[in-house]
Formats: sequence, C-alpha cells, structure tokens
Amino acid sequence: MTADRAGAARAAAEAVGAGVTTGLSAFPLTPLRDDRVDEHAYAGIVERLARAGIDSIGALGSTGSYAYLDGAERRRVAELTVRHAGGTPVIVGISALRTSHARALAHDAQAAGAAAVMLAPMSYQPLTADDVVGLYTDVATELSVPMVVYDNPGTTRFDFTPELYARLTELPAVASIKIPPPPPAAEAARDHIARLREAVPARVGLGVSGDPSAAAALLGGCDCWYSVLAGTLPGPALQIARSALAGDSGEAFAASDRLALLWDLFVRHGSLRVVAAVAELLGLAPGHCLPRPLLGLRGRDRAEVETVLTALSLVK
Amino acid sequence: MTADRAGAARAAAEAVGAGVTTGLSAFPLTPLRDDRVDEHAYAGIVERLARAGIDSIGALGSTGSYAYLDGAERRRVAELTVRHAGGTPVIVGISALRTSHARALAHDAQAAGAAAVMLAPMSYQPLTADDVVGLYTDVATELSVPMVVYDNPGTTRFDFTPELYARLTELPAVASIKIPPPPPAAEAARDHIARLREAVPARVGLGVSGDPSAAAALLGGCDCWYSVLAGTLPGPALQIARSALAGDSGEAFAASDRLALLWDLFVRHGSLRVVAAVAELLGLAPGHCLPRPLLGLRGRDRAEVETVLTALSLVK
Repeated sequence: MTADRAGAARAAAEAVGAGVTTGLSAFPLTPLRDDRVDEHAYAGIVERLARAGIDSIGALGSTGSYAYLDGAERRRVAELTVRHAGGTPVIVGISALRTSHARALAHDAQAAGAAAVMLAPMSYQPLTADDVVGLYTDVATELSVPMVVYDNPGTTRFDFTPELYARLTELPAVASIKIPPPPPAAEAARDHIARLREAVPARVGLGVSGDPSAAAALLGGCDCWYSVLAGTLPGPALQIARSALAGDSGEAFAASDRLALLWDLFVRHGSLRVVAAVAELLGLAPGHCLPRPLLGLRGRDRAEVETVLTALSLVK
Repeated sequence: MTADRAGAARAAAEAVGAGVTTGLSAFPLTPLRDDRVDEHAYAGIVERLARAGIDSIGALGSTGSYAYLDGAERRRVAELTVRHAGGTPVIVGISALRTSHARALAHDAQAAGAAAVMLAPMSYQPLTADDVVGLYTDVATELSVPMVVYDNPGTTRFDFTPELYARLTELPAVASIKIPPPPPAAEAARDHIARLREAVPARVGLGVSGDPSAAAALLGGCDCWYSVLAGTLPGPALQIARSALAGDSGEAFAASDRLALLWDLFVRHGSLRVVAAVAELLGLAPGHCLPRPLLGLRGRDRAEVETVLTALSLVK
C-alpha cells in the first residue's frame, strides 16, 4: 500500500470510528431468566432500541452485565445484538480480568459483526498505569475495528489520569474514551472536558457516562453519550441528546431536569438496579433479571421506582 | 438420625473445620508460563510447602490468582494441590462474580478433595449486605466441607461489618473468617479481635490476613494465619506462627520485625507482586509468572527485592 493509500485507509477508518462513537449510544440490559440469558427478551430490547432511532447500541457494557457472563454467553449476546439491531451499529464490550480472555472476546466480537469494541481495565489486583497500557496495547493487536476506552472507576476501581489517556490514544485503534461523569453544572463540565481534550488527539472522541451529567457534557464538548437510560428508556434519552447536540441548552437541561426523580434513584441504588426494575415493570425483562448475587430492588425500593415511572408518565 | 447422633456429627464436622482452619495456612502462587498454568512449577511449590510443615494450603486465593483463571484451570489446580500436598489439608478458593459459577467451583473443589473452601464476595457492581448473605447462603447449599468467609476489601472492594459476620456465621458451613489486617500494635490488635469475637459464635475461628499484622493478631486471639508469605517463604512464616501460637510474644514480634524490609515492599507494591518476584528469583516459578495484565516488578523494583532477600539471608 502506498503512503497515500495508507493515509486514506486510516482516514476512512477514523471516519467510521467517529460515526460509530458519536451521538446517543444505548446500553441495554442482558436479562437473565433462571440464570440463563433470556434471548427472547434480549432480542426484543435490542429491536426496540433500533426502532427508537438511537445512534449505536453498546452491548455487554456494565449495564449488560458482561462481567458476570462466560465467554460462550458473551459470544451469543454479541451475535444476537447484531442480528436484531437492524443495521444500527453495535459496540461490544470485551473486558475481562485477564488479557488473553479480552483478546479472545475481541476476536469473537468482531466475528459477530461488531462495529467497534469497548474495553475497561477490569481489576481484581489493583492495576498500575503500565499494566493498563500493556492491556490496551495487547488487545489492540487483535482489532480491525475501533476501540472505546471504557473509564468506569465505580466498577473497575481503576482511576485514569489525563496522562494515561494521552498514552492510550497513541494507539491508532482508540477512537473514543467513555469518561466518568463530569460535574453536572454547565460551566464546570465545559472546563473539565476542555482539559481532557487537551490530553488527547482531535481524532479521538470523548463520550460521557453518568446519565445525570449527560446534558451538560454534550453541551460542553462531548460528542457521544454512552447511556444507561437509553438502553431501557430510549425516548427520554433521545430528547436530551438531540437537544444538546443541536446546541439547545434550554431544552436539553429541561429534558434532563424532568428526570430528576429518576436521577435520584440512580444515585441511591446505582443505575443498573434501577433500570433492571424499570425493564421488569415495563415487561421488557422477566422478573429477577439480574445475575445473582445481585438482587433486584424489592419492596419499598421497587414500589418507589414504579411511583417515579408513573409520575414521569413513562409507564405505558 | 437421632438428635444425639446429629449433634455428634455436627460436633465432629466442627472439629474437622477447626483443625483445617487453624495454625499457619500457606497461600501459594499459581505461576503461569506463556499464559498457561505451569503445572510442574506449581506442583513443586506445593510439595515444598508440605515438606515445610505448614498446617494447611490455601490454593487459589488472591495470591493464587484465582480471579484470572477459568473454571477448567481452577479444577485442575485444585486437583494438583491435593495430589502434591502429601496429606496436608487443602483449602480451595471458589470465589466468582456470579453465584452459579461459585457453586460450580464449590462442586469441583470438593470433588478434587478439598478439606475446606473459601469464598470472597468478589464484586463488579457494588454489592449490598443482602446480596452477600444471598451469595453465601446459596453456595453453602453445595457444601459438605467447611467454608472460610474471605474478607479482603483490597481486592473485592466489599466492606464487611461485624453485623454481617454475625449473619453469615448463622450458616453452619461457616467455620472461619479470614479477616483483614488488624492494627499491628499488640494491644490494639487484641481489642479489635475481641470486638469481632463478640460478633461471631465461639465455634467460628478468626484467621488473619495481612502478613505484617500476623504476630499481633495471633497473639491477640486469632487462631489462624492465612499467609501470603508462607506460600513462598514458609520458613520465616513458621517462625512467627509457632512462637505466636505458643504465646511467646517476644520471639514472635522479633521474628516479624526481622522481616521489616519485606513488609515495606508488601506495602509499596502489594504482596502478590513481591512474592511473585521472590518466587522467580528463587527459581520456584518461571519468569513473568503473573497473569497479564499484571506485570511483575521490573528494573529497580526487582533489584530491590533481590537486595532485601540477600539482606535477610533468604536466598539459597
């Protein structure tokens, strides 16, 4: 390949990567029934997301319980997602505690048709920055699709630094970083994102996680929202995302503020347990759909989720 | 079975449990070579421990990298441990993120001949106390051998409370709790352990982890030391354990204080990376024996381990 053609190929790959990792990415649950993936329910969830018009599907994220599933289950879920996504690009989570397992998952995800993969530095023994650079470098050798660096300290217990972002984005495969929630106030979010932007090349996108901060983050310079909410309630998430990405801060913040009761539940119980209860209440998932030992919300907590859904007119 | 006979059976089971989970329990590394368990090196490590005269072997603990191995590897390591332990009781780690996986590992460990199992509340999504009670209750239904509750917040990121200890020790299977390091000073350790003793039945043992605190903990009321050090350097660990369990505080603290340089390395690098370097330097494990992404100590850090081993006359 000549230098020009290699450059063109790289530019094309980057453009594809940017397309996959911009806009609203919806993270579906992977519901279990009697300790097995409920494939029928999962297919229904994916089809519903595709119909809603989100920009990508983030399968097997933390919300998709990837950490609890074995390799065969994850391969099957990746295949089901692509099959039922109706052409919507699918980003598949390939994280594992051991590098060789993540490499195998990268292979499976690509074979299933993933448009991109996402990799978190899942940890048991605390990881050093050098361990993490080694992990991403080793896994990148498997990839012919873009990679999202998945920074989620609440579950991985690893804290990235801007310096580490800079080291990792030297890898051509890295197309986007899924960052933890910036401060929810508009100006603080913009300043925070501007500082991160200085650490990474312009070709690399920044996507926000932490749904309550999404409006501020999209208005403040993020180009993607990796959204738990959108995986189960795509409609309200699209209202926030479309307004924010169009620069309409008034409508974006209003749409986010309308969900304040839901954000409060996310803070108190963690977003996963809340959206699992929502999916069960809406009939999208069977009862007790989380992998044990995770118990779903019960009793008063579950009743409160139902009350909030009713108050927000989110129950059909 | 009559009430008397049931009582006798329970007493016998408790006596067996107490025997397995008292004294010095050595936690070996599970060395990898080219991303596969080095079975020859592992067998050698286990045989060396049995010859040294430790009281039990804690296979597939955090030091044994259980979290990084798949189910087949863990089954094989459990079998190898029992085979090469020469009759020394083997406690096998069965922790997993998903309850059903831990149950399967409990089955495999018992089939391999484990004298006891140990279970940590490994987490990805943060766990509630109710989740953890459910986990231990579900796994206990698989067991015909005693269980050690493995409290290791540095890796599981779950914090037990004395109230939770009390709930879990209502399960008859629970024979011992592996507690995090108490304060290293003698009186503070004794007070800490006395408070924990009030929370749990007398039949349940308390075993200390955190090697630098072991002397104080054994003198202060713990009946077991679940030891990283002993898995690689059983001799110095036996000196501490035998003195402390005989009530000789002067010699126990002196034996522990002689290892101050090593304890300092444990604090700075984590005990796993240090004992992996020690095992490699002593020829017990191949180079780069930790599962990637964990990188072993290199360069100056590794040279320092070698210097400390020489200073302590621990190199052959």
